Amino acid sequence: MRAALVVTGTEVLEGRVQDENGATLGRWLTGAGVAVERITVVGDDLAAISAAVGEALGSGVDLVVTTGGLGPTHDDRTMEAVAVATGRSLAVHEGALAMVTRALAAAPAGASGAALAEGGRKQATLPEGATVLPPAGSAPGAVVPHGGGVVVVLPGPPWECLAVWRTALRVPAVARVIGADPDAAPVAVMMADVVESEFMDAMGALQPEAHGLVVGVCARPGELEVTVRPPGPGADAFVAGLSVSFPGAIFSTEGARVEEVVGRLLAARGNTLGTAESCTGGLIGALLTSVPGSSAWYAGGVVSYADAVKHSVLGVPGALLREHGAVSAEVAGAMAAGARERLGCDWAISVTGIAGPDGGRPAKPVGLVYVGIAGGGTVTVTEARLHGDRARIRLRASTMAMHALRTALEA
Amino acid sequence: MRAALVVTGTEVLEGRVQDENGATLGRWLTGAGVAVERITVVGDDLAAISAAVGEALGSGVDLVVTTGGLGPTHDDRTMEAVAVATGRSLAVHEGALAMVTRALAAAPAGASGAALAEGGRKQATLPEGATVLPPAGSAPGAVVPHGGGVVVVLPGPPWECLAVWRTALRVPAVARVIGADPDAAPVAVMMADVVESEFMDAMGALQPEAHGLVVGVCARPGELEVTVRPPGPGADAFVAGLSVSFPGAIFSTEGARVEEVVGRLLAARGNTLGTAESCTGGLIGALLTSVPGSSAWYAGGVVSYADAVKHSVLGVPGALLREHGAVSAEVAGAMAAGARERLGCDWAISVTGIAGPDGGRPAKPVGLVYVGIAGGGTVTVTEARLHGDRARIRLRASTMAMHALRTALEA
Repeated sequence: MRAALVVTGTEVLEGRVQDENGATLGRWLTGAGVAVERITVVGDDLAAISAAVGEALGSGVDLVVTTGGLGPTHDDRTMEAVAVATGRSLAVHEGALAMVTRALAAAPAGASGAALAEGGRKQATLPEGATVLPPAGSAPGAVVPHGGGVVVVLPGPPWECLAVWRTALRVPAVARVIGADPDAAPVAVMMADVVESEFMDAMGALQPEAHGLVVGVCARPGELEVTVRPPGPGADAFVAGLSVSFPGAIFSTEGARVEEVVGRLLAARGNTLGTAESCTGGLIGALLTSVPGSSAWYAGGVVSYADAVKHSVLGVPGALLREHGAVSAEVAGAMAAGARERLGCDWAISVTGIAGPDGGRPAKPVGLVYVGIAGGGTVTVTEARLHGDRARIRLRASTMAMHALRTALEA
Repeated sequence: MRAALVVTGTEVLEGRVQDENGATLGRWLTGAGVAVERITVVGDDLAAISAAVGEALGSGVDLVVTTGGLGPTHDDRTMEAVAVATGRSLAVHEGALAMVTRALAAAPAGASGAALAEGGRKQATLPEGATVLPPAGSAPGAVVPHGGGVVVVLPGPPWECLAVWRTALRVPAVARVIGADPDAAPVAVMMADVVESEFMDAMGALQPEAHGLVVGVCARPGELEVTVRPPGPGADAFVAGLSVSFPGAIFSTEGARVEEVVGRLLAARGNTLGTAESCTGGLIGALLTSVPGSSAWYAGGVVSYADAVKHSVLGVPGALLREHGAVSAEVAGAMAAGARERLGCDWAISVTGIAGPDGGRPAKPVGLVYVGIAGGGTVTVTEARLHGDRARIRLRASTMAMHALRTALEA
């Protein structure tokens, strides 16, 4: 099966917004064994969108997915463009109108009723014969059959796009293309500290295709996510092979993020965690608390960005800061020990480092990071030199700290 | 002037790598007044790349830029594809060969000499009549004129792509298209607390099209980004009209994020900021510290997830927590006041709320959020009821807190 994606949004063409939907859908479809042949990004322009959808349909793909352009304003033209490309007329869909009206009733006050009603009617106007997809935010999506293929129209905000996509999988015209039972989740192997080229070497030896498996690989900073379809004994044997090739690297076979794994390990012990963050500035806390129910095991943290806060709130001795500098193994250890004590928790993780772009020196370059772990009667510190821009170094340092804790908890 | 981009790479289609080059070039070209009409992502496939380049040339754009597919291996086919699309033959370019040979001499050891030489000859093989662009890594780029337009062929690694792009700007055929004028950057109006449908109402009254303006709207949680082109008196009048329709809503006309605006306001006063976060779990700190140089005005924060931390680290009285609960105006105020004092800063912002999916009750439903601001001799608290999933509520609450501080700093 073959697919093409059409991403709409002048803000994407102009580089003001980085599109996430193309990558998310590309990963999803590849994992499901559907070949994504092209992603076309076009602006909020009726002719440009309908041309891109028309070209995609003309190339004979089985599935065209559009994202964006479903809002209430004049420059949201995707439904109209899909109607043009599929030769259908537009009409207000009563089911969609009811859905939009319900969503608007929950919207914040302030907007005028007339404007809301007009925008709502626009959002409920679909190509005739389309199957409506209930909104996750306020914009309904649609499934529009065309010839032997099908067009799926999704909203642009990433969380809405993914939520409406999941709904689309239950529409028979879409399920026929995807093949995969949407409820049959793939085996999702999460691996830490495995380089993609090493993984590709191992793949060559394990030969998943010879066993009828479709394997998708997605690299994240410091991690690999490997999806294996279909689930079953073949997939299990493949995962067993991976665990031999990469001892200790697999931290989930259900696609769990490291923050979820750390939470489960802490909850199983009845332990609590605290954080002390410098260059990551709260990112580790934000990742940990993105897990629903994290209050059961996460006590809180200190973002000790200024040295004065490291000293006053975490109790890092001033002499240590003066002698070794804030970015040092000694201070990382003292931050972790201080957080554990001051926050009254069983474990604490700390990060101090230089995220750049400024502040690097030959002895302490941008990317130098120390991670501390306090708990189980000891304090340990790991040094790393990370690469990339400020955002990547901060994310990689956060992930590294959580993996260091995971390893300590699994020991 | 009009442009189209062709991004190559199967790893991008499959979502294993997030393309950055399209956004970088899109931003660059838009700023230079060149309209980017389309970004096409295709795999490492000769027919797919040459079709995409051919379609772009056929659409009559002045400039086509390709990225990726210039490496030494068999699946790097972009030069070949550009030759096909422009009807040129391929030949080893002696100047390019000398550049590649020099770059390879500096390459890490390990690869065999014969393989390097073969790969190098491949990388120096360009469409006939092309202008070579010196490599930033090991792959030279090329400028290939075609009809009234020009094709610029750039390498895929983002830093190489940008470096070779800067070299391309000096080639007369490219300079003729770009004619860069920094004043051509659009006016980027950032507005807080404006609903998209209300904005649509105002647009109807202001009639930007009647004044020759092109207006784009991008909604983010709690914010709208509105771009207005071309810049000049007409755009200024439109922005003035918006500021009358939405008093106090505009916080930047240069596309600055609220965390940058808050940082500038604090820096201008020589003031420092602290944070006290409960349901946002460190997200506000992470956003503030995503701004390079934020250490000049951000002291740090406390993620007081557990009530014990609110009490012990921030000094929120136990009686207040027992009487009003952790999610209350009283506790939000005490958190902000406590953070300001304990972190030793001029201003502090606090957030406490229920992000869900669990923990809601009829009196305190999911989405109930209190934001506190301490500074300038007072403590103020705002209540809000936010919608969406856990991630959206947390992001919206973080943005809301930063806007509350911005308003206080602007007062």
